[in-house]
Formats: sequence, C-alpha cells, structure tokens
Amino acid sequence: MADKNIQLISTISEDNKLTIALQNIDMPKPGADEVVIRIEAAPLNPSDLAVMFSAADMTTAKQSGTEQHPVITADVPAKAMSAVKTRVGKAVSVGNEGAGTVIAAGTSAGAQALLGKTVAVIGGGTYRQYLCAKVQSCLALKDGTTAKQGASSFVNPLTALAMVETMRAEGHKAIIHAAAASNLGQMLNRICIADGIDLINIVRKSEQETLLRDMGAKYVVNSSKESFLADLTAAIIETGATIAFDPIGGGQLTSDILNCMETAASRNMKEHSVYGSDTFKQVYIYGALNRGPITLHRNFGFAWGVNGFLLFNALSKLGTKTVMAMRKRVADEITTTFASHYTHEVSLAEVLHLKSLAAYSKQATGEKYLITPQR
Amino acid sequence: MADKNIQLISTISEDNKLTIALQNIDMPKPGADEVVIRIEAAPLNPSDLAVMFSAADMTTAKQSGTEQHPVITADVPAKAMSAVKTRVGKAVSVGNEGAGTVIAAGTSAGAQALLGKTVAVIGGGTYRQYLCAKVQSCLALKDGTTAKQGASSFVNPLTALAMVETMRAEGHKAIIHAAAASNLGQMLNRICIADGIDLINIVRKSEQETLLRDMGAKYVVNSSKESFLADLTAAIIETGATIAFDPIGGGQLTSDILNCMETAASRNMKEHSVYGSDTFKQVYIYGALNRGPITLHRNFGFAWGVNGFLLFNALSKLGTKTVMAMRKRVADEITTTFASHYTHEVSLAEVLHLKSLAAYSKQATGEKYLITPQR
Repeated sequence: MADKNIQLISTISEDNKLTIALQNIDMPKPGADEVVIRIEAAPLNPSDLAVMFSAADMTTAKQSGTEQHPVITADVPAKAMSAVKTRVGKAVSVGNEGAGTVIAAGTSAGAQALLGKTVAVIGGGTYRQYLCAKVQSCLALKDGTTAKQGASSFVNPLTALAMVETMRAEGHKAIIHAAAASNLGQMLNRICIADGIDLINIVRKSEQETLLRDMGAKYVVNSSKESFLADLTAAIIETGATIAFDPIGGGQLTSDILNCMETAASRNMKEHSVYGSDTFKQVYIYGALNRGPITLHRNFGFAWGVNGFLLFNALSKLGTKTVMAMRKRVADEITTTFASHYTHEVSLAEVLHLKSLAAYSKQATGEKYLITPQR
Repeated sequence: MADKNIQLISTISEDNKLTIALQNIDMPKPGADEVVIRIEAAPLNPSDLAVMFSAADMTTAKQSGTEQHPVITADVPAKAMSAVKTRVGKAVSVGNEGAGTVIAAGTSAGAQALLGKTVAVIGGGTYRQYLCAKVQSCLALKDGTTAKQGASSFVNPLTALAMVETMRAEGHKAIIHAAAASNLGQMLNRICIADGIDLINIVRKSEQETLLRDMGAKYVVNSSKESFLADLTAAIIETGATIAFDPIGGGQLTSDILNCMETAASRNMKEHSVYGSDTFKQVYIYGALNRGPITLHRNFGFAWGVNGFLLFNALSKLGTKTVMAMRKRVADEITTTFASHYTHEVSLAEVLHLKSLAAYSKQATGEKYLITPQR
C-alpha cells in the first residue's frame, strides 16, 4: 500500500484571497464500515467548481508554485466575504464523486465485500489519491466496468433519474429540459427514450440540436431562433409537458417556459379567467449557469410553481425504495444509458494549471474534464 | 317582488374597446336548490377590478351615457387582445361576492331554510340587484348580522384563513405577509393574534406601521426604511418564519424575503455549503399589485419555492372538512375577526362615474369601496 496521499484543497483567507493547492495528507485507515478507495477518475462537475472557486472572481486568478505543485490564487470581492464566512480559514476538500479500486476495507461484511472491487463513490473530497468512504456511499460497479466509466455514477445519473421520478411522483406526463445537450441532458434523453417519456430538449445552438436529434431526440427547440416561443408552445401542445428542469436560472427562460405552458393550457379554454388556466405548471431550477436574477414575466396565471431542485433533497422526497432502484439501474447501465463522455483528462496538478482552469471553468456544453489522480 | 333587475357588465369588442355599463335583465327564478338574493352590499375587490377592466388601459377611460346610466369606455392595447380573445364580444358579469336578503327560494330543504335570511354569497356576478345563486354558494349569516357587515365574507376571510391553514399543513410555524395593512392583512393579523401565531407584517408607510401596531401587531417592518432587510431578518430570526404571502409579485420583495429567510437560516450553519441552508423557504404570490416582472436575486440556496396562490386552488388542497370549519368561523366572527372597513359607498351607477373609478382603481391601502345596488 502506498504511503503518500495528496488532495486538492480550496481555502479562503481573512484577507479576501482564495487559494487552491495540493496538500500532502496521511493515508487513511478505514473504520469498520468504511473502505479506502484508490481514486482513479473523478469528473469536474459544475457543482465541484462552485466549491473550488466559491465566491472568488476567477478573472483575477494567478498561478504560482511549481509545475508539480502549482498554486492558484484569486481575489474574493469584499462584499462576497460575508456569504462565505463559515469557510474562511478552512481547507475545503473538493470533489463530489469519482471511482477507483478498493484497496483496504474495514471489518464489516459490507466493507469486506467491496475489497478489490471497482466502485463509484459520492461525497467527501474525491479530488485526492486515496479516499476513505462509508460503504453506503459506494456503488459497486459491475465486473468489467472501469473506474473511468464509473466516475460519474452519482451526480448526473441520479439527477437525471430523479427528474423522471419527480415527474411521475407529481403527476406530470412529459418533461422540458433546458441546456439539454449537456452530459446530463444526453442521459435524460436516453432515459426518456428507454422509458417512453416525451422530452422537450431546449438548446441554443444548431449543432446541439443536431447532436440530440442524432441521438434519437424527437423534440428539440432552439432558444436562439426567432420561432423559439412558437416552437416550444407547439411541442408542449403535442406532449402535454407541464414540468421543466432548468440549470440556468438567471434570465427569462423559466418565465418563457411557464408562459408557453400557459398558452398551451389555455388555448382550449371556453371561458376567460383573470386567474389563467387551472393547469399546474412547474419549473425546477437545478443550477446557476446564469447567476443573474431570475426574471418572471407573469402571464401564466396563478397555477404555477418555481422551485430550487437539489439532488439530495429530491432523493429524500422520493424515498429509499425508489433510490435503491435508481442506484441499481445506474450500475447496470453505466456504459450505456448513463455513459459520460470526457473531452480532456488532467492530473491533480494540471487542474491547477491556469490554461486548463480557463478551459474547464467555461463549462461549455460538450466539453467535460476528467481528473485522473494517479497520474 | 320587484320586477326590474339591473347588472353591471364589462364587454370587450372586436375593435379593441372595453365598455362597462349597466344592463336591464330579467328577475331570476330559482331552481330547486337555488335562492334569489336581493344584493344589498358588494365590495370592490382587486380581483373584481381585474374582471371589470381586463386588459384595457384605464388611463384612456371616458364616461358617456347619462347620470343614471353612465357608460365607461377604454382602449384595449392591440397586443393585449389575444390574451383576452375568449371574452371578446361577451357581456361579462362582475362581482365575486356580496350579501343580501333571500327573497325567493327553490323547493329543496336547503333553499327553503334560507328564505328571508341575510346571506353572503360567492361567485356569479354580484354587481346586480337580484342574484340567483346555488345554496352551497351561500353562507347564512347569524341573526343580527347586516348585509353590509357580511358583504366580504368570502374572498378576504377565506384567503386569510387559507394562509394560516396552508402554513399549518406545510409545517411552517410563523408567517410573513406583504402589503400587510390591507383589509386582508388586518384580518390576518387578528387571526394570528387569536391563534397565537407569529406574523411579520411588511408595510411601506409609517402610518401603516402605526395602524397595525395599534391593532396589536408585534412584528411590523417598513420596506421604505433603509434598515428594512436587517429588520426583516431580525424578525425572521425571532419568529422562525419560513412562509410568506405576497400580493405584489412584481419587483424584488419576494426575492428580499427569501434572502432574509436564508440569512436567518444559515446564520448558525457550522459548515459552509454551496447549496445554501437545508431550511425550506416558501413564498406564495397571491396578487399582482405590481404587474411588472418578478425578479429573484438568488442568494437563497436551493431549498425554496415560489408559487402562485389562488383561493380556490388552496381550498381544494386543504379539503372539505377544513373548509367547512373555516366557513363556520367566518359566520361566527364576521363582525370581529373578519370585519371589513369601507371608506366609500357607491350605487351601481356611481361605480361608472369616472371620479369614483379613478379613486377605487388606485387600490390604495386603507381605501375600500362598497357597492350598495339597492340605492
């Protein structure tokens, strides 16, 4: 067993500075119901960037240190400090998920059963070489699945499945998804095709439209087109979609979606009502790709909801039985339905190279970075 | 029995004109489970103005006709016509509620039991002299209650009670109310005092602050003060309020409320989370006093909901048993907890005098108009 361990940490200091660096840490020893995983692959998700960059203004980012031990520093605007005061002075581990090989296991039967297996893991700072994790945070991958294939087994797959299960639980019959060409969006598209659910994909570029259509998507509307609102309304009329998931938030897409749903719902109303249609319209905002204000131009009556959507909250609403079935499906279909596609692989040190940082922090659709901490 | 009947109607014509006028109609004959009510008092609620004015630009309003049969006309902007197309060419009755004496009754026991009684009534165009209504739309007032006292037995009382019951049903423990000096707000204040519920009243003028404090309100915050956000946050910390009701909608008050709730919820968090606190924060928007966009500046994490709130939808969620108890409470306490205060009384014709129209359409807090159709 190796005796060196490295993790990536993000620290905000009292003097308004963010520092991201590598840190030498001890090799962990597993407790009874824990395992030690040699992390071989971990994705850079938007939620990881939010932890890593926090409130810093990354246009001020500078690289120092050495090639092997680079250090990124950036300024945190003074007015943003109060919002992050609980993390000031703390070295925060980064990385929500990843996968690797279990190289040590605690004494419990559950832990021992994982020894030598390739597992995916959720939570606790996966941007490191060796991670100690609870058995229940691990998902044993099927024989033949590689760590790279399993690196994104939780965040995107469970989020996509949680959207479908939330649609079912709340009585809707079709889904609208924004920023739909993302890895998550492609997954949702595959799930909906497999399960026979109508999915309206909203994208903003014609190449994303093509990508999704080539993957079998039936409804793709392009928000950059002049006909966008008419196209979206037509798709809603055809599918009956009354629930949407939007990772953007800022701007007026949520508003547009609600207004198109209302146009569709009210088109056959015989009596005019100042309260709008009775059809309940729901948008869940699950990200903040646009951090600007959410602007709602309210021509959608009174039967509507806009809610934040967070995976862990959604899972606890759906309940253990549904969640266990979701996890099993992910393990079974990780190389098909839930396959992730990475465009770049970087070492832990390369995460802190200004050049790659500038690239992955764009969060461009179709670009996705994978960290391989053993390089 | 009188043989003349008059109602107030609102009509939008193909050529983008709104006309509000009085119309002679037949005296109604009650069906088996119906009664005919001589309407003696009916309030002018914001929801009635929405039906009466619809999409018209009331700054263009003109009065014609005679003193006794005035006619109001106004322009409907061309771009607003499609939103109201289902009412074009139809004479729409106005008036959501009112009260009066039952002067004729159908054959059912329920109808006969109301004969001669003073009742409040919901729905169906109460801005008329004689209204035929279903027994279940009537609330028999207690002996000694006048029609004027009972005129507002439904919209405000049930809305205020529905807020409290929604708070209970959804597991919150204190309420925030915006535009809190309104008739509805004063009612909610009385209910919350009676039921021992902490209520944070948001107002925008110091005289409204005084008014509510004189009525026993413990928490009143003034949104015009520089200290508003700090004051609101302090009140939330003290009460634990996580649900708010806002009749304004447009602007950023909803956003401010959510952000203050989040500040209160996260103040004791030991670990920083990019997703914000776990405390679920809810704002219900139940009006459109500001028709501009709702702007949400999202510093309130992911555990939040903003929903439209409409009395009838809320009642159907709460269920029949709760609603029956609410109606009984209204009848029992209509001269105390649910008392409405009117500053002006107008006849049906006077509703169509430009001078009164200009006054009641302001919807100024503290000003409230009552129609007395028998004058």
